[in-house]
Amino acid sequence: MFQSAWTEKLGIRYPILLAPMAGGPSTPELVAAVSNAGGLGSVGAGYLKPDQIRSAIHEIRKLTDRPFGVNLFVPELPDTTDEAAAEMIKHLNTYRTELGLTPIKELPVVAETFAEQVQVLLDEQVAVFSFTFGIPSKDILDAMKKKGITVIGTATTVEEAKRLEASGIDAIVAQGSEAGGHRGTFIGQAEDALIGTMALVPQIVDHVSIPVIASGGIMDGRGMAASFALGAAAVQMGTAFLAAPESGAHAVYKEKLLTSPEDSTEVTRSYSGKPARGIRTAFMDDMRGYTGTIPAYPIQNALTREIRQAAAKANNPELMSLWAGQGLRLATSREAAAIMEQTIGQAEELVKRMSAL
Amino acid sequence: MFQSAWTEKLGIRYPILLAPMAGGPSTPELVAAVSNAGGLGSVGAGYLKPDQIRSAIHEIRKLTDRPFGVNLFVPELPDTTDEAAAEMIKHLNTYRTELGLTPIKELPVVAETFAEQVQVLLDEQVAVFSFTFGIPSKDILDAMKKKGITVIGTATTVEEAKRLEASGIDAIVAQGSEAGGHRGTFIGQAEDALIGTMALVPQIVDHVSIPVIASGGIMDGRGMAASFALGAAAVQMGTAFLAAPESGAHAVYKEKLLTSPEDSTEVTRSYSGKPARGIRTAFMDDMRGYTGTIPAYPIQNALTREIRQAAAKANNPELMSLWAGQGLRLATSREAAAIMEQTIGQAEELVKRMSAL
Repeated sequence: MFQSAWTEKLGIRYPILLAPMAGGPSTPELVAAVSNAGGLGSVGAGYLKPDQIRSAIHEIRKLTDRPFGVNLFVPELPDTTDEAAAEMIKHLNTYRTELGLTPIKELPVVAETFAEQVQVLLDEQVAVFSFTFGIPSKDILDAMKKKGITVIGTATTVEEAKRLEASGIDAIVAQGSEAGGHRGTFIGQAEDALIGTMALVPQIVDHVSIPVIASGGIMDGRGMAASFALGAAAVQMGTAFLAAPESGAHAVYKEKLLTSPEDSTEVTRSYSGKPARGIRTAFMDDMRGYTGTIPAYPIQNALTREIRQAAAKANNPELMSLWAGQGLRLATSREAAAIMEQTIGQAEELVKRMSAL
Repeated sequence: MFQSAWTEKLGIRYPILLAPMAGGPSTPELVAAVSNAGGLGSVGAGYLKPDQIRSAIHEIRKLTDRPFGVNLFVPELPDTTDEAAAEMIKHLNTYRTELGLTPIKELPVVAETFAEQVQVLLDEQVAVFSFTFGIPSKDILDAMKKKGITVIGTATTVEEAKRLEASGIDAIVAQGSEAGGHRGTFIGQAEDALIGTMALVPQIVDHVSIPVIASGGIMDGRGMAASFALGAAAVQMGTAFLAAPESGAHAVYKEKLLTSPEDSTEVTRSYSGKPARGIRTAFMDDMRGYTGTIPAYPIQNALTREIRQAAAKANNPELMSLWAGQGLRLATSREAAAIMEQTIGQAEELVKRMSAL
């Protein structure tokens, strides 16, 4: 059930994509577990150096011979002023001191590695290249096509979906406002493009002819069946797998996820400079009162990195980024294979029951 | 298809509820059209005086012998200071002058009529009493039960849904963040309770045992089938009917609705003092820069009423409230009966097609 020409071409049994979760959760174990269970695992590789991506791919290939994807962030030029950065550095030094880190005076070097990241994907000929925050150049997309790599982009509005289809890619993730982590918005303001999955998917489906992958708030077979009703060809699930034993999310992060209600998340620019949905923390609350300008991504991300890492070491969730979607009451700590099985079984059962009504 | 013991008891053929749209759109014609087509029409009567509600009920009964509902706002005591109100009066006098209205110096009288509104519903023994913004007293709920009136409340979080079930009502509207118009939130801040329908419905369904009615972003048979997959017993649709010929929405409002993209709405307190989702206007943009405190509902609502009315007379949408949900690209100007028929037919077809996959 739920198969299509597209999933067949992709070589996956079930149209369930693991959301790429950059910064730790998408370990080779989690990626391989989802692919081995018939879905499409995916590495959130946006923050990884080219050689780290290569190692991750090799490790996953030791664990599965099924297809999987690698997700990258399309770079933008940050328009942050030196004054905004200097003011933020001063502000964040308070946290550094609190956590025992040396205060800093200057921006850490933010090296641009997108071209090299892309080259690794081409060299390794991964099954799927997915991206967020924009559209890669035609040269990159052509090179992917030449290698037979399936390319998937991310849209938060109909306009973005149309732009993505026009670029010649193979499928589009429709990212509803429920989704955890970074907003993929690349036209206009991300805060204006918080469209719920129920509304976003059918509107995008009506305006493009390539497959649409529903994401945002999909946690089980109910969400999966609902997404197919809305016209999606597949679903992408992240939060549902975040507390699985294979996920690399920190223990206190998993605990927060499993004990927080559905209204405990919000969209914040405070951690990375780009809007992202996560469980509310003391850091987010504090930054709401910040009167300066939050530097754009990747500046702010670089400025908070060591703080987040030190907080993780100290088991202090209040200074960590706890990306999560709004379905978090439905998160479970079961193994990825069990989550896959439950999701598929429930979706099939539901469709049968509905048709008998 | 899609019938249940609950819809049977309610005496409706299809589990589609017209969202109560206060302030004009839910004319007797629209309410009766939805009920005559097998759904449950509903009057948004929150702003109506008791005798206006009685007349509306009588008019609807001339047009249909099917059941319909009446929706009221549960009153709260506004905690607005005199200074905040005085500052807002001064600010809004600019608009009054622009529209040819006499500037005002004092708050208009906001008469509390909830008890009398409720009495009309009891006297007339309407089929359904629905409410938003809280929970009516036990006395009121008991009186409704005694008259055999079905009572439906509105929840935007799991916690609110549990509270509503505990009050002994018959069903709960789960209002997703996509929904147009006022947020029903009555515990905590409405801005924190913007949970997408895809995430909200299954989480509420898991925590209550009474029927859950999905609302927010549901525009056609795809949304209807998706809602049933999520566990809903019925759907509530407002924006889908807003541009129908039977709707009392102003012509320029309908035109805006039919030509605006999905990311053109936002949640604002500027018109009524209570957060509500509507198409962005110059008034909303302007009020974003207002440095004072926006008085709470119903104060701010009373202060902007004549401005909105004068703007409507002048065909100026930029000073009107244009409540709409995020599904607005799917709105149509067809008759209510055609919208009902298309929705049901598409949902049935979809379920059949999905079960054959």
